[in-house]
Amino acid sequence: MAAPLSPLRWLDPPDGPAIVLLDQTRLPAEETYLTCADVPQLVDAIRRLVVRGAPLLGVAGAYGVGLAAMRGDDVEAAATELEAARPTAVNLGWGVRRALMAWRAAASRGGPVPSPMECGRAALAEAATIAQQDAAASAAMARHGLSLVPAGARILTHCNTGHLVSAGEGTAFAVIMAAHRAGRLNWLWVDETRPLLQGARLTAWEAGRAGIPHSLLTDGAAASLMASGQVDLVLTGADRIAADGSVANKVGTYGLAVLARHHNVPFVVVAPTSTVDLDTPDGAAITVEHRPAAEVACLSGQPVAPAGTQAYNPAFDITPPELVTALVTEEGLIHPVTEGSLRVRGPAPACGEGPGSAAYVEL
Amino acid sequence: MAAPLSPLRWLDPPDGPAIVLLDQTRLPAEETYLTCADVPQLVDAIRRLVVRGAPLLGVAGAYGVGLAAMRGDDVEAAATELEAARPTAVNLGWGVRRALMAWRAAASRGGPVPSPMECGRAALAEAATIAQQDAAASAAMARHGLSLVPAGARILTHCNTGHLVSAGEGTAFAVIMAAHRAGRLNWLWVDETRPLLQGARLTAWEAGRAGIPHSLLTDGAAASLMASGQVDLVLTGADRIAADGSVANKVGTYGLAVLARHHNVPFVVVAPTSTVDLDTPDGAAITVEHRPAAEVACLSGQPVAPAGTQAYNPAFDITPPELVTALVTEEGLIHPVTEGSLRVRGPAPACGEGPGSAAYVEL
Repeated sequence: MAAPLSPLRWLDPPDGPAIVLLDQTRLPAEETYLTCADVPQLVDAIRRLVVRGAPLLGVAGAYGVGLAAMRGDDVEAAATELEAARPTAVNLGWGVRRALMAWRAAASRGGPVPSPMECGRAALAEAATIAQQDAAASAAMARHGLSLVPAGARILTHCNTGHLVSAGEGTAFAVIMAAHRAGRLNWLWVDETRPLLQGARLTAWEAGRAGIPHSLLTDGAAASLMASGQVDLVLTGADRIAADGSVANKVGTYGLAVLARHHNVPFVVVAPTSTVDLDTPDGAAITVEHRPAAEVACLSGQPVAPAGTQAYNPAFDITPPELVTALVTEEGLIHPVTEGSLRVRGPAPACGEGPGSAAYVEL
Repeated sequence: MAAPLSPLRWLDPPDGPAIVLLDQTRLPAEETYLTCADVPQLVDAIRRLVVRGAPLLGVAGAYGVGLAAMRGDDVEAAATELEAARPTAVNLGWGVRRALMAWRAAASRGGPVPSPMECGRAALAEAATIAQQDAAASAAMARHGLSLVPAGARILTHCNTGHLVSAGEGTAFAVIMAAHRAGRLNWLWVDETRPLLQGARLTAWEAGRAGIPHSLLTDGAAASLMASGQVDLVLTGADRIAADGSVANKVGTYGLAVLARHHNVPFVVVAPTSTVDLDTPDGAAITVEHRPAAEVACLSGQPVAPAGTQAYNPAFDITPPELVTALVTEEGLIHPVTEGSLRVRGPAPACGEGPGSAAYVEL
């Protein structure tokens, strides 16, 4: 097994202050790192998907606040810039606000006036806490999810949900890693995940590094694979889960869920409770981002369709809760996934108090 | 509308004997032609998918026998080589055998010993007949299939089934062309059809040439498109249809059939009776070609997955007859598709007597 990945790492002076990012746009061809020495560089990296994935974006945003503070920049302005880097990523703004509140608390403390460095250290400490909580949530999801993995399992997954999107081992991929360590994983099937090929480029790379036996397949080949009885479990992550349990995730997920039901294969979603959005009542209320036709019509910079071809290119799709066998969160398993099983425990916790969600997960 | 295509054309001496193929691997970027002057060149072209598609492979195989004969090569050996070039499409071997029998009949005729050229001409005449029959079958399928297309139809198709695979307008695409001419086609949804992108490269190109309004989508996006109520009909071709009505077609077809059933959308297969193979009892008996991992792991010559990544890469999948709403052949519609509705009318007709199939199609 290769050395653990550092998709994001803080660099102290004298080499820093800076944030060092594994450049995910260059994988798997090159394992190169990008050093962001100021917030505009970090914002650009977030926009270009050098760093990506909901949990890791929360960590990146928080460290960005710490970076601005350590440099003596305008921290409030930097926070606003960071939050706007990707408007759809909920975790990004959440991480930024947590670090910003820690910085403000340090800056307004009574007694001797704190130095900018001291305030910066408070923001960085909060960023480190977010990362630790993310790693802990990942480990808890792995533990709970493992209970759903049969011995000798052949697991099919979609998109990328591992070390690259998390301070830990990720969401669905954390369960896969746990199954591998427990000797329960016979084979991992990796959907290539068109159009951006996160499965081929990133998940196959992560599986290879982890020594997990795996095969890549086109998204259209999953159906015959299931029909041939070679899939025991489908595991995916989620980008947002509505109050009724509808799951927004990478396009192609919904089709997998329909196929899994048709073939009587369990379809399990792995996501932290922070992904549950009780303000969104159902799947129809989730806005699905439509992306440029060029993502479908060009590959590796080469056109594969005639110039000017239109495309239907939603980035996500919505899986209704009745097709989700179980939802794995850091707090435990939810099954079946229904309006009733995703229950509000009370008002949403203030920033810094919890994982940022009001969802109560019933076991 | 652009000029009609010539995906395959026979070239007589002095420039020939040769078979000139539109190189489908170079579309849509380049419209280039490849001249095959002997059978090994043709076999290589068939394997590399320079020429492809069940009906056209029948024509190509037959002309290949004629080419061997005109060159004075070992015709029996050439026929064996040609038949083995690709395993799944039934038409290739069928076309080869028809031309071979015509050649044998000419070679063994009583009277003065015929010249190799005379025997070759007999094989070529049979190849031309196959092409004419294919064009006629295409027109008849279009006529029958049109009866299943509602006004304002939004049709989803997979892979490539048009002029490029046929001496006529193809199979499913012939129905789409007929619907377009009849003013019944509102929109064509083109599955990109990974791994070889025949939808993006070829069907979008053909649709553009024909002035058909269309959008391209990734195979994984078809599910949410159906869920959004924007698909009225799914039309595909077939590479082989077993006696029980199981349909072998481009990988991804079976998943579409499952999705169509889930969303209550008719799933219709368009194929000539020559695609029905009564010697293959059911789907399990159909040999599915598995192709190299590089087709999945590389795009436009660039690796998109780590070096050495394994792939599950079947070229085809099998759709069971219960998911097929109707089968459109040149003889009419079959629905439902059952063992009983694909019935043997009598002994299989001798080669050259009919469309090459023993299937009797009940209306």
